[in-house]
Amino acid sequence: MKLNCDLGESFGSWNMGVDQEVMPQIDMANIACGFHAGDPLVMTKTLALAKENKVVVGAHPGYPDLVGFGRRSLNCSHDEIVALVRYQLSALDGMAQVEGICVDYVKPHGALYNDMMSVPSVRQAVMQAVAGYHRPVTLMLQATADWQQHQEEASALGLTLYFEAFADRCYDDDGRLLARSKPGAVHNHDKMLAQVRQLIEEGTITTVSGKTLKLHVDSLCVHGDNMTAVQAIGDIRRCMAGAP
Amino acid sequence: MKLNCDLGESFGSWNMGVDQEVMPQIDMANIACGFHAGDPLVMTKTLALAKENKVVVGAHPGYPDLVGFGRRSLNCSHDEIVALVRYQLSALDGMAQVEGICVDYVKPHGALYNDMMSVPSVRQAVMQAVAGYHRPVTLMLQATADWQQHQEEASALGLTLYFEAFADRCYDDDGRLLARSKPGAVHNHDKMLAQVRQLIEEGTITTVSGKTLKLHVDSLCVHGDNMTAVQAIGDIRRCMAGAP
Amino acid sequence: MKLNCDLGESFGSWNMGVDQEVMPQIDMANIACGFHAGDPLVMTKTLALAKENKVVVGAHPGYPDLVGFGRRSLNCSHDEIVALVRYQLSALDGMAQVEGICVDYVKPHGALYNDMMSVPSVRQAVMQAVAGYHRPVTLMLQATADWQQHQEEASALGLTLYFEAFADRCYDDDGRLLARSKPGAVHNHDKMLAQVRQLIEEGTITTVSGKTLKLHVDSLCVHGDNMTAVQAIGDIRRCMAGAP
Amino acid sequence: MKLNCDLGESFGSWNMGVDQEVMPQIDMANIACGFHAGDPLVMTKTLALAKENKVVVGAHPGYPDLVGFGRRSLNCSHDEIVALVRYQLSALDGMAQVEGICVDYVKPHGALYNDMMSVPSVRQAVMQAVAGYHRPVTLMLQATADWQQHQEEASALGLTLYFEAFADRCYDDDGRLLARSKPGAVHNHDKMLAQVRQLIEEGTITTVSGKTLKLHVDSLCVHGDNMTAVQAIGDIRRCMAGAP
Repeated sequence: MKLNCDLGESFGSWNMGVDQEVMPQIDMANIACGFHAGDPLVMTKTLALAKENKVVVGAHPGYPDLVGFGRRSLNCSHDEIVALVRYQLSALDGMAQVEGICVDYVKPHGALYNDMMSVPSVRQAVMQAVAGYHRPVTLMLQATADWQQHQEEASALGLTLYFEAFADRCYDDDGRLLARSKPGAVHNHDKMLAQVRQLIEEGTITTVSGKTLKLHVDSLCVHGDNMTAVQAIGDIRRCMAGAP
Repeated sequence: MKLNCDLGESFGSWNMGVDQEVMPQIDMANIACGFHAGDPLVMTKTLALAKENKVVVGAHPGYPDLVGFGRRSLNCSHDEIVALVRYQLSALDGMAQVEGICVDYVKPHGALYNDMMSVPSVRQAVMQAVAGYHRPVTLMLQATADWQQHQEEASALGLTLYFEAFADRCYDDDGRLLARSKPGAVHNHDKMLAQVRQLIEEGTITTVSGKTLKLHVDSLCVHGDNMTAVQAIGDIRRCMAGAP
Repeated sequence: MKLNCDLGESFGSWNMGVDQEVMPQIDMANIACGFHAGDPLVMTKTLALAKENKVVVGAHPGYPDLVGFGRRSLNCSHDEIVALVRYQLSALDGMAQVEGICVDYVKPHGALYNDMMSVPSVRQAVMQAVAGYHRPVTLMLQATADWQQHQEEASALGLTLYFEAFADRCYDDDGRLLARSKPGAVHNHDKMLAQVRQLIEEGTITTVSGKTLKLHVDSLCVHGDNMTAVQAIGDIRRCMAGAP
Repeated sequence: MKLNCDLGESFGSWNMGVDQEVMPQIDMANIACGFHAGDPLVMTKTLALAKENKVVVGAHPGYPDLVGFGRRSLNCSHDEIVALVRYQLSALDGMAQVEGICVDYVKPHGALYNDMMSVPSVRQAVMQAVAGYHRPVTLMLQATADWQQHQEEASALGLTLYFEAFADRCYDDDGRLLARSKPGAVHNHDKMLAQVRQLIEEGTITTVSGKTLKLHVDSLCVHGDNMTAVQAIGDIRRCMAGAP
């Protein structure tokens, strides 16, 4: 199971995240493409850092909302979503190829990710945007109880999927994340490692109500905001390698 | 000699230019990439229109200045220019490839174009940005008396050039455009056609002082702002085809 | 009954509307404040034009979404809405005072207007933003069957309201506008004038189902997109003055 | 002599500076207005923090260049500069008045500040923008050997000025700051305190060549980037209070 992390989220003079420290610890970098974070210079540096660390690169497109960091849902049309995803994917992919690598997958950011998971028409637009790209690129979405339906939607478009789970987030019985505002939504360190262990060993998670849910998971999403987060990635790595 | 024109300069709800009428009349479309004009949806439509009309596509990158339409010089560093040109080129090129075509050349827009022509360090940054792209793309710049020096700079980077001239603008003795603020800077219709005829037949232009200047020209820049401009393109076409 | 119109919606090099022709025909100008349209220079010119024509000035704040022209709903928090309305109101008001006039009212634009009418929490945020301004400014919203409830909400905050109706739009039985996508949503010229006449003479409109609905209306919203729209304003004026 | 500091330079999810710690230490807060940094929510919070600490508030307008943080010169026209300064001043001033305070002065930011100091036409535009505001607001600019000429320019417009010096920067013989790229451009801690002491006690600074230059100074610019900077402000305060 691969670890993926959002990176390249600095913008101009504003820094975010400790990319230098995170990059060596992860397998897949979701790189912001300039609409909610990232700028051409930040993207250039992040791609070079990914290449140096042999990390697989994904485009992390968001709604065009810098001040909201792409976290506010924006009511876009089908064509607008297709176009904004393709623009951002294309921009990162061309710049990656200049570095001698290329974009392997797309993982939408923030509100676009949430809308993709909860609104079928948004998901359809994102899937078409990625499926219609001129070379095969995989779409990453959240592993939920509906994963087979999502798989079928993708297959109908000739699109491959990566399913991701969250190490530190509590799930409801539908395999969705509990809203951050709810108590118990974010696991403490021990619960996080227990959830990772259970996912690795049994392919399941335990939901907020205590139910056991089978999840099809290709990748685990981790965070790179600060040095505490980087340490947590190390712990998850060791846990995945079988540490007790 | 090919005709090139700036297109795709609408933005969101704001229309600019009569692209539907211009596209069938030209050979090369300089398409805005979202930094000074154009947006993902406008780019999608403009690329489709270019393909439909078998028009060669060029990226038309500008400074990140929507409100100034990229016409105000912005004092960027070398790395900033390289990154912003590559980002815009990549975005358009990926979206073009989705349409089954690809970007053939880059022609900087507005103040970036002017700075490229007048500031060697800016020209060097633009040249490196294009030369380092992952597949060969040509750079379009203005045909001036310095064209051989520019050719040498490009060759040193393995970069090919297109040189363009302006049908309707008066030149000074260095082969630069007379500033629009100066009297006689923009030719009337007859003078424009005379300048085109002389360029075609003799490969020269007559400067503001009456000197004859030899210009190496691959393409002629025309305008597509309104229906009068479209008619002028038709007249230039007929003039190039040998009409008296 | 006053006529109000959206103006100052140009942006940089992109023109929108025929403000020069519209301004002499209206009583109240809703001026864009730079977030969805308008820029500092456009605002300066529009304010001067309003002053010259003795037209009352309103701030027309929108979501920060230039490419979407503020027509796409953006899921903002209470504090974000309060802050973005106050910022835009303040910017226009200060610039108006430089011209020796001042902002009389606020009319939200596009999706912010629609959200204000349909989402109580958004309406509450907009009302607080305007009510808390350092000097009294009126809020303009749509006259609907719920106008008394809206009046009570405003009064609780010490806020005065203007209610507006639309001359050319068909209403449903709740006094809301029929969605533009529905047949009959936009009246033809004769129906528009009939609706204006009925509003003036009887204070009612006839809904899509044929019901008669009493509407409390202070102002009529007209359009200034092009010369046809300007002519329609003239016809509405004559109709209001009692022309048969 | 008052201490002034740039504050409110966060933007959306990106934090910059330690405003909470700096505000109690300073007398005058230069608050970003949304064009190069700051957003409506950040401005609201910064104004409240200034009020709480009884700190005088100044508008800190910049070129419209978020990704460049307003540090890149943008070749604007006279009218564009007047309009962008007034827009930003108005926005902050209206929001300040909501908090029961008001903007006392304007200090341009970054490249706009540098252009104001070195390009007479830019200075003229900034001065007109501030002088023409609807109530008296002071303009802050750098104390140089040319201060009397600047004073005359301002007086001709009925504009009052604050002159500021920099505690930690080395000056050339014209009373301009040595470019940051030059050796010795930024003083170490001891030299900084010595420069402050000399300014307080003798009203002079010692230039890079060893010359003594008399400077008319109303305020000292300090930095609030991090906790080290905050400590330096404390040291400067003690130094100004006569500590040895």
